[in-house]
Amino acid sequence: MKLGRLNHIGVATPSIADSIAFYRDVMGATKIHDPFDLPDQGVKVCFVDTPGAGGSEGTQIELIEPLPGNASIASFLEKNPAGGQHHVCYEVPEIHAAKAWFESQGKRVLGEPRIGAHGTLIFFVHPRDMQGVLTEIMETPREAH
Amino acid sequence: MKLGRLNHIGVATPSIADSIAFYRDVMGATKIHDPFDLPDQGVKVCFVDTPGAGGSEGTQIELIEPLPGNASIASFLEKNPAGGQHHVCYEVPEIHAAKAWFESQGKRVLGEPRIGAHGTLIFFVHPRDMQGVLTEIMETPREAH
Repeated sequence: MKLGRLNHIGVATPSIADSIAFYRDVMGATKIHDPFDLPDQGVKVCFVDTPGAGGSEGTQIELIEPLPGNASIASFLEKNPAGGQHHVCYEVPEIHAAKAWFESQGKRVLGEPRIGAHGTLIFFVHPRDMQGVLTEIMETPREAH
Repeated sequence: MKLGRLNHIGVATPSIADSIAFYRDVMGATKIHDPFDLPDQGVKVCFVDTPGAGGSEGTQIELIEPLPGNASIASFLEKNPAGGQHHVCYEVPEIHAAKAWFESQGKRVLGEPRIGAHGTLIFFVHPRDMQGVLTEIMETPREAH
């Protein structure tokens, strides 16, 4: 496998509304997308763009707020009440090849590929197999820049 | 302030040597810089490049291993023995203006600006004031792409 683009870093927050105000007013973000629910994953998400090198598209911040009944993000926020870094997400050209690759390396892929926040197939790999970093792998959107 | 480029994300590790093997052999990184000590900050660091959009320079992974006597990273690794996400780092055009900005917003800047891993001035902002995310602010290197 060849390392892909760092599409986004996931940041858990108790309140996307508060986080939007923080990224806009304190950090000076100029492009904050509309939040939306991802009910299959039990989260509300919101993407904040960061500028890349030379005017390119940079790595995004994915704000994540648990929807009612989401135990894993709620438990993360119990340990980190202000929020915190939750995962990183790299792009790959083909999700099933990537799943086979990680499994061949003895890495625990968490479930089958499913549609993620950018509308393409994604899976997560267990943080204990990934140097302590919960890692999302997503297929690059076809219309990506 | 205007949000700058996400220069790198800092990932703590008990062993940079093991992490280099992981990023090279499992993640498929093709550009891993030489590790070096940053004695003022009590760490050994190593930058792993990720590809940006359209062939641009992407956000780097900064691997961080504590040097002997470094209490804060060692304590992080006690809680996260496999390593984990430690901080994020955004670029700014002028470090002193950025420090004044964060202070004007009531954010706790941790110490005076000092030379960081990329050779330019940096400071950290307290995670409790930054939505739970330890945030490094660094002046953009002049020779940056």
